[in-house]
Amino acid sequence: MDLQETEAAYYQYVKKIMDFNETIALAEWDMRTGAPKKGISQRSEVVGTLADEVFSRSTSAEMKAYLDVLADPSIQNQLSAVTRRMVEKSKKTYDQNIKIPQEESKAFTILQSEAQSVWEDAKKADDFSLLEPYLEKMVALKRKFINYWGVTTHRYNALLDLYEPGVTTETIDRIFSQLRAGIVPLVQAVKDSSNQPEKDFLTTPFPKEQLQKFCLYLLREIGYDFDAGRLDQTEHPFETTLNPGDVRVTTNYLENDFISTVLGTIHEGGHALYEQHISRDLVGTPLCEGTSMGIHESQSLFFENFIGRSKAFWQHHYSDLNKYAENAFRGQTVDDFYRAINASHPSLIRIFADELTYPLHIMVRYDIEKALFDGDLAVHDLPAVWNEKMREYLGIVPPTDREGVLQDIHWPSGDFGYFPSYALGYVYAAQFRHKMLSDLPNFNDLIANGEIVQITEWLSKNIHQFGSLKKPLEILRDATGEEPNPNYLIQYMKEKYGEIYRLK
Amino acid sequence: MDLQETEAAYYQYVKKIMDFNETIALAEWDMRTGAPKKGISQRSEVVGTLADEVFSRSTSAEMKAYLDVLADPSIQNQLSAVTRRMVEKSKKTYDQNIKIPQEESKAFTILQSEAQSVWEDAKKADDFSLLEPYLEKMVALKRKFINYWGVTTHRYNALLDLYEPGVTTETIDRIFSQLRAGIVPLVQAVKDSSNQPEKDFLTTPFPKEQLQKFCLYLLREIGYDFDAGRLDQTEHPFETTLNPGDVRVTTNYLENDFISTVLGTIHEGGHALYEQHISRDLVGTPLCEGTSMGIHESQSLFFENFIGRSKAFWQHHYSDLNKYAENAFRGQTVDDFYRAINASHPSLIRIFADELTYPLHIMVRYDIEKALFDGDLAVHDLPAVWNEKMREYLGIVPPTDREGVLQDIHWPSGDFGYFPSYALGYVYAAQFRHKMLSDLPNFNDLIANGEIVQITEWLSKNIHQFGSLKKPLEILRDATGEEPNPNYLIQYMKEKYGEIYRLK
Repeated sequence: MDLQETEAAYYQYVKKIMDFNETIALAEWDMRTGAPKKGISQRSEVVGTLADEVFSRSTSAEMKAYLDVLADPSIQNQLSAVTRRMVEKSKKTYDQNIKIPQEESKAFTILQSEAQSVWEDAKKADDFSLLEPYLEKMVALKRKFINYWGVTTHRYNALLDLYEPGVTTETIDRIFSQLRAGIVPLVQAVKDSSNQPEKDFLTTPFPKEQLQKFCLYLLREIGYDFDAGRLDQTEHPFETTLNPGDVRVTTNYLENDFISTVLGTIHEGGHALYEQHISRDLVGTPLCEGTSMGIHESQSLFFENFIGRSKAFWQHHYSDLNKYAENAFRGQTVDDFYRAINASHPSLIRIFADELTYPLHIMVRYDIEKALFDGDLAVHDLPAVWNEKMREYLGIVPPTDREGVLQDIHWPSGDFGYFPSYALGYVYAAQFRHKMLSDLPNFNDLIANGEIVQITEWLSKNIHQFGSLKKPLEILRDATGEEPNPNYLIQYMKEKYGEIYRLK
Repeated sequence: MDLQETEAAYYQYVKKIMDFNETIALAEWDMRTGAPKKGISQRSEVVGTLADEVFSRSTSAEMKAYLDVLADPSIQNQLSAVTRRMVEKSKKTYDQNIKIPQEESKAFTILQSEAQSVWEDAKKADDFSLLEPYLEKMVALKRKFINYWGVTTHRYNALLDLYEPGVTTETIDRIFSQLRAGIVPLVQAVKDSSNQPEKDFLTTPFPKEQLQKFCLYLLREIGYDFDAGRLDQTEHPFETTLNPGDVRVTTNYLENDFISTVLGTIHEGGHALYEQHISRDLVGTPLCEGTSMGIHESQSLFFENFIGRSKAFWQHHYSDLNKYAENAFRGQTVDDFYRAINASHPSLIRIFADELTYPLHIMVRYDIEKALFDGDLAVHDLPAVWNEKMREYLGIVPPTDREGVLQDIHWPSGDFGYFPSYALGYVYAAQFRHKMLSDLPNFNDLIANGEIVQITEWLSKNIHQFGSLKKPLEILRDATGEEPNPNYLIQYMKEKYGEIYRLK
């Protein structure tokens, strides 16, 4: 085979892997949205079969043969940018998987599934010791994997790289220390402010059917294409991509907490817009997905916070809200509403945290993960360290581990290194917004006039269309001309919360 | 590997094929129930990838190696009944596929998809000549395939065997000639009767939401398990099995033709009950599906006709119908209703035909298919022969080919040999009912008292649980002690229509 033929065969080979991935995504969407319960255990086996297939094809002798030819540095200039990046991604997956002995990889998979189930019990019983032995084994295995990959110092970087390629602890340390310096005093000032927003009215019941219609309306308003997606109901909202023409979102209709539903829907909508706008040229390649967890989160947070929690947005949509809610909020002004949905105070549970305090929750987890992999923190000491960090960052201490170290599924799932992406997403989002304010000086007017689609187009042009063709920091640099800079987020927070809480 | 190890490896190998089949079924269900349209073309490629995978695994060297060992006649007594039958089925698939040159098999697949699309145009234009060249090529290829399989005389039997294993033209000729002799005079007498039922009130609007609730209620009444299934809406109702714990049905809510919705739902429910009751021991084997199209149809028709169109059923459910329909039918008695939903008259379109005339539509198609493959009928002459047969069997002639030879998708889909299963299903169903009347002498009371579940249990015990472990005629013999006997259907028709039309 000459180079062109090898390239064509490689494309075909990879397309099949992507097709299998699409069926996995469909099977999982189906299990979460309404598959009958008696079929679930067999369906899980189906997902296992497909995942095995993806794994074995990604690490096969055939894949190696393609990579031997196409990853050869001397021929890179003969390849298109797309092929080069595809090969780089395929090779990364190949190397990561092939270096780990199969029995250890299997052991980790089994541990993941056991630990998730034990975690539920441990949370119920508020007993970290149940989970401890599993986490210990997982951390030990992860450390071994990192060694197999050939990393001996800064082990945690190898985990960060799984979710945020190219981002290191050095970068995150810099970002987080700036963020902390900016946010912690602001949180304190907000807490001390005598201008606390009234927010009790947010529990006013919002009939499910009306709430559903309002969510459908809002998704259309931000540019979500229902010919390339659908909205279903699940307990935990999520977005999943089958292909760029089929990007689905879910939400949960909470009649007594409608604002969580509304903002959760917009959040998932933000993820979905990213995936719906990926260039169709990338379909069938591993580049046809968001480039990192952090960039993905930047899109969902952009829409949730900079759109969904903005005053301009509700200036336009508050009357619609009242229409759908059958005038339930006619007693509150749009300003009352805006302040209520942005009320901020330190809290224990990350997923319920407000925009301002959220990054601090991530810092707690980041410090701990770093100490677990690059320091000498023992799994046994996690609860104590957790509580200490919570006091340090947020000034509160969880009364129980259930509300502390046991709250998140990420560690029992083996997803060490994932958390920082959430905070990076905030930083990226604010940096995009800053650039956008100069490209679209009428940014707030667009939102206030219901012309969000122009904002979506900016994101599509500068971020979405590239899928994984560009790496996260490359996207950021090309779109904003800068490395990650947390000052834009700090600036945004100061202005917004300064106004809401009338800080001096 | 010793025999036991080979058997275990074969089971594992086959399980994966079944897992792939489950994903194909899911992808197709999804495409028909609500997948966004912009994702469909990529999704079709996914289905193609999975189908290729199933095909190549079913005809692989590895499969051949298993079959060489396990299909060896000298070791059959060392295998369980399940393994023996699995091997027999795997071998049949293997032989059928391996004997056909790959390029011809591919050509046929392409023809199928082209012909289906041309068929839609031909139907719209009422122009058979558009479809003719495609059908000619398909028939020629099918004849070649039959030759490859090694059949030289009674070619049509090879096609029948695809849908109704073990049933030959000899059997069908016998059954259909008896049926014809019984039904044709009855159709004439019904037509001539002066006691025609009034049925105009069946177009009374039935609000969609209420109709949906009524369908959910009826499915529960016949024993459909919603923990192992779900009901969705599609233009054409269907049943699809992902696994026995996940058997889905769909229906279409026709506000101005609610009885079609109701009976269509019960029909699909009958298919679903079959699949929901297959023994869980057969999951992961090729035996975990209905044993033939005919036996499958016997279950759907049993419920549609012997339950859903019975007087006993409506004696129990007519007041419920009126409740759901907000008293729309309080002007009609249950007897009016029963007669209306059983009104019969010769008509042009098979899928809208009534219970009594339906088998005659099948005979038209059977005669034609037989002549195409074992006689010398040319594709070009299909329209003329169709009209002639319609006059012969039903006494009416379609004014257009759209209402004649072009009405069904089966031939453009390449499904020659499928039609007879529909009529065999009627015959089997009546034969099961006859046996049931002696096993459950209170058959009609059970229906009239809303205790259908006892009837469902009889079917489950005698038919459903076996999946494909028994062949169709074996199921029939074991359950009824007889070969296919059309007299029970004729008897049923005579009694029922004699009463409705007050024939002498």
